[in-house]
Amino acid sequence: MSDIKMIEAAAERGRGVVRRTPLLSSPFLDEIAGRRVFVKAECLQHTGSFKFRGGWSALSGLPEAERARGVLAYSSGNHAQGVARAAALHEVPATIIMPKDAPELKIANTRALGAEVVLYDRAGGEQREEIGTRIQEERGLILIRPYDEPLVIAGQGTCGLEIAEQAAEEGITEAEVLTCCGGGGLTAGVALALEARAPRFRVRPAEPEGFEDTARSLVAGAPVPNNGPETGFCDAILTRVPGQLTFPILSRLCGPGLVVSNAEVRAAMRAAFLRLKLVVEPGGAVALASALFRGAELEAEAVIVTASGGNVDAALFAEVIAEAD
Amino acid sequence: MSDIKMIEAAAERGRGVVRRTPLLSSPFLDEIAGRRVFVKAECLQHTGSFKFRGGWSALSGLPEAERARGVLAYSSGNHAQGVARAAALHEVPATIIMPKDAPELKIANTRALGAEVVLYDRAGGEQREEIGTRIQEERGLILIRPYDEPLVIAGQGTCGLEIAEQAAEEGITEAEVLTCCGGGGLTAGVALALEARAPRFRVRPAEPEGFEDTARSLVAGAPVPNNGPETGFCDAILTRVPGQLTFPILSRLCGPGLVVSNAEVRAAMRAAFLRLKLVVEPGGAVALASALFRGAELEAEAVIVTASGGNVDAALFAEVIAEAD
Repeated sequence: MSDIKMIEAAAERGRGVVRRTPLLSSPFLDEIAGRRVFVKAECLQHTGSFKFRGGWSALSGLPEAERARGVLAYSSGNHAQGVARAAALHEVPATIIMPKDAPELKIANTRALGAEVVLYDRAGGEQREEIGTRIQEERGLILIRPYDEPLVIAGQGTCGLEIAEQAAEEGITEAEVLTCCGGGGLTAGVALALEARAPRFRVRPAEPEGFEDTARSLVAGAPVPNNGPETGFCDAILTRVPGQLTFPILSRLCGPGLVVSNAEVRAAMRAAFLRLKLVVEPGGAVALASALFRGAELEAEAVIVTASGGNVDAALFAEVIAEAD
Repeated sequence: MSDIKMIEAAAERGRGVVRRTPLLSSPFLDEIAGRRVFVKAECLQHTGSFKFRGGWSALSGLPEAERARGVLAYSSGNHAQGVARAAALHEVPATIIMPKDAPELKIANTRALGAEVVLYDRAGGEQREEIGTRIQEERGLILIRPYDEPLVIAGQGTCGLEIAEQAAEEGITEAEVLTCCGGGGLTAGVALALEARAPRFRVRPAEPEGFEDTARSLVAGAPVPNNGPETGFCDAILTRVPGQLTFPILSRLCGPGLVVSNAEVRAAMRAAFLRLKLVVEPGGAVALASALFRGAELEAEAVIVTASGGNVDAALFAEVIAEAD
């Protein structure tokens, strides 16, 4: 099981490799939100998202003989890039299974980072788990799960260690910490880190409308899957149901969840562009959108949000920032 | 005169206020440049450019009785915002003289940061110095010059202190440091800081074609003004001639200059968007463009560039990133 010791060990293995991303703020964002807003800019992490933390933690945490066999991952794009880069730095091969309709940039980057990409057709009903199991068996690869993997959760938790340190530097003693939440790896890791290092901070997962399985599951006290479409605007964080390892952690430490519309996510992307000079992708802007537009559901005087990723195609980003608020 | 002691004092006054911006990198940028490229992300500084360093240094370095009278600055936008924010944090009034044709975002932000903005018509031949002198005398304000001011140069120099520290953390022992250069405040400050802290680093100013007064002046050994237009794509760094205080520092410590085209600046903005998830404005992308596209004029194995600012209107940024390389 993941715990603060595993997170500390992941941080130690990541020293000099994983980037300490800045905690940013702007008086303009504070004004919109009606409270102090701090943005943990994980889009500035290597490969453009926090997923490099988990990928590096998993690869560096494997026994050398296992790692040398090569790794396998399935991902819509950010975990793919994080694992691909971590594998390249360890000089071991990576095979990544990605949906054909993932953002072009994510597929191209994963290849350019040296991984072999195997595309599957999610609309056509192919199951990535089946393809993954087949390739894994054929090639003897080590599977790196995107969130239901203790080493990955521990790696994402290093983001929480930094949040605790940086918040202390800013003099923040109480805060709500909003995380962009898909399978819950980042949320669980950050929650475990803050439980140990900043116990007065409360972690609250943020999700897009129609994909709020975590919010509903936290209310129900048990995993409740989404029944709607599998794909959407916030591609990076669309999961059907919380993870088996992550949900018990979320259930113990986090909530309630926050849910925002795609229009609010777009407005948050514009705000990050304009006020922070950050490129944030849709799935990475859900927490900032919650801070800016769900003030009535927040309590703390300070809110810290993860801007989890920035891997967005240029055409889409151009369209979003050119819109009027 | 500015020196390392003044820069250290400016860093001390800025502690807890001025942001330590990250030094970023990407294997994709290294590949284009054919060497290691590190980007000092000053667009993430408060007010979206390094100019807050100089503004804060100048305001915090004034005797309290003088500061209380209020400050005056003229600027096409980034110095304006830096001084406006520094004045607001000191709770003293700021009056900023800006050209009517400055980017809308910069004018709007300067006002929103609490300054009184006085617009003048540079195409119509109005001289900002004349307007400034009149207002200064009428109101008894303290003028904060954009670069020919020792406290401002010292403030910009704090960026150089951070570059020296961060380069040491990355294990860089020799480097060329490319700075986006207008009047030379950043270039002079960084050069003085590195002279003391990283003497094997060479600072080289980068400018856009048609506005390479610094490059030509360094060759000539004396200030040689531009004779072309006053305005252009890289609005933040268009000055007619190097500063009186800055040029002797540049002449002693820096060069040769690098000159890039607007098309190369646009490509650098796209690269920063795609590979670093940073919003960089035209004038802030000149140094990165030099690193990426002037490799034949570079010598060091590692190059460090300032991404000096990110205050670009959404419509222009959308247009630039949507272009094909």
